[in-house]
Amino acid sequence: MALIVQKYGGTSVGSTEQIKNVACRIAKFQSLGHQLVVVVSAMSGETNRLLALAKETQDNPNPRELDVMVSTGEQVSIALLSMALIEMGFKARSYTGAQVRIHTDNAYNKARIIKIDEDKLRADLDAGYIVVVAGFQGVDETGSITTLGRGGSDTTGVALAAALKAKECQIYTDVDGVYTTDPRIVPEARRLKTVTFEEMMELASLGSKVLQIRSVEFAGKYKVRLRVLSSFEEGGEGTLITFEEDENMEQAIISGIAFNHDEAKITVLGVPDRPGIAYQILGPVADANVDVDMIIQNVGYDGTTDFSFTVHRNEFSRTMDILKSKVIPHIGARDVVGGDSIAKVSIVGVGMRSYVGIASKMFRALAEEGINIQMISTSEIRISVIVDEKYMELAVRVLHKSFDLDQTP
Amino acid sequence: MALIVQKYGGTSVGSTEQIKNVACRIAKFQSLGHQLVVVVSAMSGETNRLLALAKETQDNPNPRELDVMVSTGEQVSIALLSMALIEMGFKARSYTGAQVRIHTDNAYNKARIIKIDEDKLRADLDAGYIVVVAGFQGVDETGSITTLGRGGSDTTGVALAAALKAKECQIYTDVDGVYTTDPRIVPEARRLKTVTFEEMMELASLGSKVLQIRSVEFAGKYKVRLRVLSSFEEGGEGTLITFEEDENMEQAIISGIAFNHDEAKITVLGVPDRPGIAYQILGPVADANVDVDMIIQNVGYDGTTDFSFTVHRNEFSRTMDILKSKVIPHIGARDVVGGDSIAKVSIVGVGMRSYVGIASKMFRALAEEGINIQMISTSEIRISVIVDEKYMELAVRVLHKSFDLDQTP
Repeated sequence: MALIVQKYGGTSVGSTEQIKNVACRIAKFQSLGHQLVVVVSAMSGETNRLLALAKETQDNPNPRELDVMVSTGEQVSIALLSMALIEMGFKARSYTGAQVRIHTDNAYNKARIIKIDEDKLRADLDAGYIVVVAGFQGVDETGSITTLGRGGSDTTGVALAAALKAKECQIYTDVDGVYTTDPRIVPEARRLKTVTFEEMMELASLGSKVLQIRSVEFAGKYKVRLRVLSSFEEGGEGTLITFEEDENMEQAIISGIAFNHDEAKITVLGVPDRPGIAYQILGPVADANVDVDMIIQNVGYDGTTDFSFTVHRNEFSRTMDILKSKVIPHIGARDVVGGDSIAKVSIVGVGMRSYVGIASKMFRALAEEGINIQMISTSEIRISVIVDEKYMELAVRVLHKSFDLDQTP
Repeated sequence: MALIVQKYGGTSVGSTEQIKNVACRIAKFQSLGHQLVVVVSAMSGETNRLLALAKETQDNPNPRELDVMVSTGEQVSIALLSMALIEMGFKARSYTGAQVRIHTDNAYNKARIIKIDEDKLRADLDAGYIVVVAGFQGVDETGSITTLGRGGSDTTGVALAAALKAKECQIYTDVDGVYTTDPRIVPEARRLKTVTFEEMMELASLGSKVLQIRSVEFAGKYKVRLRVLSSFEEGGEGTLITFEEDENMEQAIISGIAFNHDEAKITVLGVPDRPGIAYQILGPVADANVDVDMIIQNVGYDGTTDFSFTVHRNEFSRTMDILKSKVIPHIGARDVVGGDSIAKVSIVGVGMRSYVGIASKMFRALAEEGINIQMISTSEIRISVIVDEKYMELAVRVLHKSFDLDQTP
């Protein structure tokens, strides 16, 4: 008998029919003798409906009141799922975030979990109840309702698993696991049986939308075994996100390929090569609340250098304006150029630590297809390149094949 | 400066546009220097939408979970109204029943308020906030959400007014006050400026659906001045429900005429006239959870009597079955007869206490129109008659005219 936390997303509980299906699935786990805590999101579409009502009422909805409002979405789901379980003859009981209590800070709309009171849940579990908890929400120290921000239900699941020392936190979603890359682009993409926490962090932040990055961080911090599974297919084992490399039985060098085309690149030309110049360029950008992703500065010659970075595509023109008006004249750079028709393609894998030549293999594969690399950045387990947006899908396919990701290791 | 509790029903907050209108109305009171606690219901239609979802999931929805679910309706309303007030530049803060805390017993779906913690609200009011509270809901001692049953938002308003010792509890609804009778039947019906608590109790329980009976009871118990006003018309003074007869300045003998055709009558014929017979007839009816309204037993002759009573029309055939199978053979009565095409018409007024001949005036007026009276029952301030359903509207019109209710006293 093990304690398992399961989390079902909005598309898994999108209708009362689907909620009954989820109840059936939970029933099977219960019948295996497991203790179950189930976290649910709002029915799909509900959060957007509530946000629209809020926007109709206030252009910029008050953050505290917005949380009072949108938290009702999950509250409806927990009641319905509990009813479905009770209808099937099980003992079930629902809890809102405030009822559990899931203590958070008071950063409405994007609160962070501080701690969880697990006594009531533990007592219910010991009394044979299936405990159903509203995802995405908590309560601050004054008793006000908070939400964790979109996708925060994953974090609720992981946090509950950590607090209750659950054997595993299972995230049920509309895909059956984490893939080597997006199967819509590479039909040969393969589901990974396991992926390490670090790889998942890189994959999540680079564009694989399977899990919210904060829930992965949380799982890493509290050493929670996380498993991604399909809520529509029966019997799959999904993908286990391990925090021990030893558990990663596949041991491929590269685990997956992530990509996105949300970014734009900006290059400041003829920057005087002197200390403090990076701060003089990026300081005004940060002051304007623009998030900078990749940053590249090459070795200078002639006393000048080129300085490049990427920002979110939505911030491109605003950032160009800042540079033209506040930075270029001030630091005496020659010009600023940029473009938003770029894509970032990354290969991710803990195997990189032990193997050499991964980067050159990647660059050769792209070169053979005539794909020009505009920027490169690396971390210990990731190599990212910026290419022309029109080559993004080709690059992903080529790399998937080059690193044999379609083959089971 | 006075502390006023205002309650707005579902039709007053049916859309974000209407919520903005309510916010404007509240703003005017605030600008007069009043402290305001505002109670709101769910947006009209929302509670029914939630109930339908629950019914889809469980034939007989679990009472605890049903309350978790339907309480979200008011939670959305309080957030939206607070947003609308904040958008207008006011300080506003919302509270669910659990957040206030409105302590109730644990009778889910029909809980009763035990006490209200008013400290947080008082502090907010003193800090210049408009406090917006979810109607219809509370929390039991284990922290589970409860609801007060349909229409319970009125009760929340009255209970808050009592706890905060408010000057007045204003119930905004879709009518502009309490009328001498339903204006759809008697166009000359007149709005009452005041009505006593006792009269309102009789009018509410007899079919005037302006206020929920439990909120009136509560107002009487805690001596809360209650005022019914229209949420759609500006500037009206509505109807004040007073608990002091002296405040009832109009001093009419009869205040209003109530009526309904929800009942059915049942007569047990040839009942042996001996002690305990009433219990032998009504005991099995009560055991079947059938609510009995009027009960009439005439003086017997020949050792037998006829025993009549009324029940809700929906319970008519079930009650007849109980009597035929369990009562008649057992007590040795002759037969049981009944019918459901009846109506109850009542005249209500505290003036009855001081005037004689009111009943005979009523009976003469009905007789002059050829309306046969089938049953009569009275209380200190009410006389009710059962007539054939087809004469109901005529009876109401005749009595309204006979007692000069179209004239200002």
